[in-house]
Amino acid sequence: MPVAPTSPAAPSAPGRPGPLLLHLDSAADGPDASVSRQLTELFAARLRARRPDVRYRHRDLAADPVPPLGPGLPRLGRRLERTGLVPAHEVGAHTRDAEEAREWELTRPLVDELLAADLVLLGVPMYHFSVPAALKAWIDRVGFPGVFTDPAGGPGLLHRTRAVVVATRGGGYGPGTPREPFDFQLPYLRALLENLGVPARHLYTVTAELTLAALVPHLAHLRGTAAHSLATARARLETLADRLAPGAPAPTPHPERTS
Amino acid sequence: MPVAPTSPAAPSAPGRPGPLLLHLDSAADGPDASVSRQLTELFAARLRARRPDVRYRHRDLAADPVPPLGPGLPRLGRRLERTGLVPAHEVGAHTRDAEEAREWELTRPLVDELLAADLVLLGVPMYHFSVPAALKAWIDRVGFPGVFTDPAGGPGLLHRTRAVVVATRGGGYGPGTPREPFDFQLPYLRALLENLGVPARHLYTVTAELTLAALVPHLAHLRGTAAHSLATARARLETLADRLAPGAPAPTPHPERTS
Repeated sequence: MPVAPTSPAAPSAPGRPGPLLLHLDSAADGPDASVSRQLTELFAARLRARRPDVRYRHRDLAADPVPPLGPGLPRLGRRLERTGLVPAHEVGAHTRDAEEAREWELTRPLVDELLAADLVLLGVPMYHFSVPAALKAWIDRVGFPGVFTDPAGGPGLLHRTRAVVVATRGGGYGPGTPREPFDFQLPYLRALLENLGVPARHLYTVTAELTLAALVPHLAHLRGTAAHSLATARARLETLADRLAPGAPAPTPHPERTS
Repeated sequence: MPVAPTSPAAPSAPGRPGPLLLHLDSAADGPDASVSRQLTELFAARLRARRPDVRYRHRDLAADPVPPLGPGLPRLGRRLERTGLVPAHEVGAHTRDAEEAREWELTRPLVDELLAADLVLLGVPMYHFSVPAALKAWIDRVGFPGVFTDPAGGPGLLHRTRAVVVATRGGGYGPGTPREPFDFQLPYLRALLENLGVPARHLYTVTAELTLAALVPHLAHLRGTAAHSLATARARLETLADRLAPGAPAPTPHPERTS
């Protein structure tokens, strides 16, 4: 699986493949009801409009779930931790039975996709204070030991990867709120991505709080705060899409304005 | 679904059903390789030996995964948050289409089981700093809005439920360790269970740390610490099983010792 040689920060040279945007959504709700999906779509569409050479991969972890983890994968991972970690393309050669081989077959495409991505966009609603099980199923496979380690001892293989995390929550969990200690969503994703090797300076987080306020009577008094949070998230995602696509060709002018 | 009238703290009266132990495991590994499974089994076997009238339900969330969440469940949940929460046995009457009905059918048995349990035993290995996706899939369904709320305004329906959480981790994440901030497993489960309505005083946590030390060369110097952590966890679970089964009939003497 080729690793794209450019990052969204640099326009691709003629003939080179454009940078790869890997877009992951994890809301059980569809685009009509999911704020996280609406926000990731806003970002992806804007980035792609500014950077038409971007290659795009959308993985819907809710509609197309990552299969449940079997015992073969942790067994294989532990063996490699014991005998020596190997790069993703060598893991298959270390499987010892059909179960391990099958588990790795289910895992490798996810790992390769993440290795190949220049920019990862994660849409993550808070479910019960944490990330959806659909996203955790992806994490439980993709975090396979050693596959983001440079065998030559250099920086981790995701050290040039940028990640944009769109974290939505039905309530308010921001700094200083009474519910802040219940936020096992955004601090968790920060810790996880940094541990996979995405540098903190390449990690962009955007939150939309109180997404339930518009729907639920007991949060009605917070509708103004919720609307402000959503507008801020949208604006930040637009800025981020522009910032992560410098050197992009100017967006195609809208027909009504040019004719 | 009947709610068992007794708790493990009180022996059941003649003719009454014994207390219900709901045992959940979530490790992808089987009993041969999973420390969390070995520890939950130790607790369950000891409690059941001391308290033969205990009813026992074992749910293996890895071998028998909770189905991925569809859009019908959050849609139904939001509607009830808007129009008024209802007890579990009334939720079905509020479904509006086949998708919602099916999602609720997949969810209700999990809710009923938790409502009926006097004691919940959770076996939870740390996967990538958090709980396994297999357990999160259960949480994403069982935490349905309102089903643990007393419609009469009394204490939550889990206010008499006891929970024993067995949290295992490959590394060290205890208080004061450098990895403590990466523990999104045990603090998360505490927050979740308390939010569902299990009182903090009914929540017992047992950790076994550094379970990988015996297997992985770079943790070999921590094998002593790991062995101590495991021995402490086992002793605590034995004590807890005895403490949560007072008034139990004396365990049946072992044949070799009585004849």
